[in-house]
Amino acid sequence: MVVVGGGFGGLYAARALAGRPVRVTLLDRRNHHLFQPLLYQVATAALNPSDIATPLRSVLRHAKNITVLLAEVERVDLPARRLVLDRGEIGYDALILAAGAGHSYFGHEDWEVLAPSLKSLEDALEIRRRVLLAYESAEREPDGAEQQALLTFVVVGGGPTGVELAGALAEISRQTIARDFRLIDPTRARIVLLEGGERVLASFPETLSRRAQDSLQRIGVEVRTRAIVTGVTADAVWLGGEQIRARTVLWAAGVAAAPLARTLGVTLDRSGRVPVEPDLSIPGHPDAFAIGDMSLYRTREGTVLPGLAPVAMQQGTHAADNALRRLDGRPTRAFHYRDRGTMATIGRASAVAVVGGVQLSGLPAWLAWLLVHIMFLIGFRNRFLVLFEWAWAYLSWQRGARLITGPWRGRG
Amino acid sequence: MVVVGGGFGGLYAARALAGRPVRVTLLDRRNHHLFQPLLYQVATAALNPSDIATPLRSVLRHAKNITVLLAEVERVDLPARRLVLDRGEIGYDALILAAGAGHSYFGHEDWEVLAPSLKSLEDALEIRRRVLLAYESAEREPDGAEQQALLTFVVVGGGPTGVELAGALAEISRQTIARDFRLIDPTRARIVLLEGGERVLASFPETLSRRAQDSLQRIGVEVRTRAIVTGVTADAVWLGGEQIRARTVLWAAGVAAAPLARTLGVTLDRSGRVPVEPDLSIPGHPDAFAIGDMSLYRTREGTVLPGLAPVAMQQGTHAADNALRRLDGRPTRAFHYRDRGTMATIGRASAVAVVGGVQLSGLPAWLAWLLVHIMFLIGFRNRFLVLFEWAWAYLSWQRGARLITGPWRGRG
Repeated sequence: MVVVGGGFGGLYAARALAGRPVRVTLLDRRNHHLFQPLLYQVATAALNPSDIATPLRSVLRHAKNITVLLAEVERVDLPARRLVLDRGEIGYDALILAAGAGHSYFGHEDWEVLAPSLKSLEDALEIRRRVLLAYESAEREPDGAEQQALLTFVVVGGGPTGVELAGALAEISRQTIARDFRLIDPTRARIVLLEGGERVLASFPETLSRRAQDSLQRIGVEVRTRAIVTGVTADAVWLGGEQIRARTVLWAAGVAAAPLARTLGVTLDRSGRVPVEPDLSIPGHPDAFAIGDMSLYRTREGTVLPGLAPVAMQQGTHAADNALRRLDGRPTRAFHYRDRGTMATIGRASAVAVVGGVQLSGLPAWLAWLLVHIMFLIGFRNRFLVLFEWAWAYLSWQRGARLITGPWRGRG
Repeated sequence: MVVVGGGFGGLYAARALAGRPVRVTLLDRRNHHLFQPLLYQVATAALNPSDIATPLRSVLRHAKNITVLLAEVERVDLPARRLVLDRGEIGYDALILAAGAGHSYFGHEDWEVLAPSLKSLEDALEIRRRVLLAYESAEREPDGAEQQALLTFVVVGGGPTGVELAGALAEISRQTIARDFRLIDPTRARIVLLEGGERVLASFPETLSRRAQDSLQRIGVEVRTRAIVTGVTADAVWLGGEQIRARTVLWAAGVAAAPLARTLGVTLDRSGRVPVEPDLSIPGHPDAFAIGDMSLYRTREGTVLPGLAPVAMQQGTHAADNALRRLDGRPTRAFHYRDRGTMATIGRASAVAVVGGVQLSGLPAWLAWLLVHIMFLIGFRNRFLVLFEWAWAYLSWQRGARLITGPWRGRG
């Protein structure tokens, strides 16, 4: 059996297959599982890459029936039951595809270099670099208008990632570095959150959207709804005729499934996702399953499951079971999502959450958020380090990973 | 007053100037002070970048007379008392140059891409990437000879950095990842340490050199002395007519002062260092001081001070004092180095040290090494995290930062 992808879907599938009577190969082009829900904290200098990433090999060390290979899957040949890799090929009897998704630039892929989005550790480090460098450049900038553009940060997209990024950017400006500069006042920085729809956190109940928006505004984020981005340049974002001068633009809008989906030869939805059968298999290919963000699962009630970690985890475990059933000649079972809640954090002691049907906001929501995220982190070491970093940040108002690294050349 | 460089020399100079009646600008092209002695631990996945790096701004936050600017100094105009930056210029009444040094490829600068050396966080992450990728590629390699080349790691240079790197590479192979692969046996990896001279750790007493060599061999490092590298290619190191096939070559030999020294218009030594007066000033320029690795200080006894952190720290404090004396019209004082000892670590519970004239090796030397390195780390947070990582690594035989990050492209 082959599992493609070591995110939440692939890793939970692999864990469910550990020790079972089947030989499994897990393919990923990274050597680590990434705890995506905390990636924005790496981008905003609160956590280190390795606090939220664990080598897949070490997570699966004791699963002797599982081989982890660092490989890029270029194409899936469903009829021939084989995968074309960056080097070589691999056949399968059963397949679980969990290659994830990225953000969509809605046909403006050229905006990506100007407004990076947040999917990998490299993205997070690049965003961290841009944000911290903007303040450094502003400190050296004599021109007032240019300085203001350097101190303007625009986040596009008011979903959980956008809200969390904007909140963290406001904290950096108002707290972390408030007293670190001599020539600029970092607390003057403008943080703008642009949402195309009616409200931020559209997947949450309306009350919580409103509370989140209030909380964001209280910590200094300008929230603009019904704001459709029509252009991005190196120093501005355009909303129709209106220009917001900004040197740093971050993208947290839209969904685009992994391009691998396009090689399957099946019909995809508008976001490039694979619509799957009730048992998570790909239509017409009962031995191949697609799960997590790259798939589209419609419940019996007709609603589409959101692209959240818990969905991917539950689908991973379920697809592993169904794949084993197929190999044994037993009938597969339909997938049912157990919704245990959703949450998004805004800042210090501030979050919104729906847990077991109950709406929470403020400190209780934040504590729930904290607990859940620590629980699902892989490994004691990461849990301990993240708890320490959070405690330290909470008490010192500082951030532990304020490093600018990246493309410098030369030595001396 | 201007201080160039935020390493040990520059930072200790800035700290000595904090709160004094002088306006100071500290220039560095990085935003962080880097604790170089532990950089090899980032390169070998034991520590995180931010464990050993601290933003210069936050270290100097309370020194209101000091402005930190992220800037690259391109040229020093000593007669005109000004520095040409990547953008703009800055004048000074007194100057402290502490731009550091890199490794020397002895005229073979083209080897640098093939055999990276270790000076910055980017270098460390690139080395970590190469080392971890070598094992990943070996796991996928069908050809036996190529697989062995992927599992051969050559370290050039038997000084402290080379010894520490080789020791850590042996630990990775023999312990950390010993059970993580299915198709290769990581403990079969060859670690070769090449030293051009008679013995490793040549700056240490001969007994300790021999002990270090024995310890290295015991943990699986092939140590070769009088081994002069005559060529480096993408898959081999040449020693005259002899070829060692290796996909990973790390460079820890030679010293080359920062290229900035060449813009001073003074005579430099063979390694490009600035020979300084007894008071650390640059000959003919009593208001400009050069300290740390970019300078060459000859004691009254005629010996040259080594390029070590304690030398740079003491010179930083001393140069700050002398610079203030010059501004006040008082005579400067000659520098005297207080040698409190040197040490190098080899591996788990294994090190060599000379402390207060006493030679130590094995566990006592390792404990002394541990204590000193924790003491000199900047900030409680980093001390705590490094201690935690070390304790965790010691007890679990694991390494906390086994991530391959770097140049990937595409998404999904």
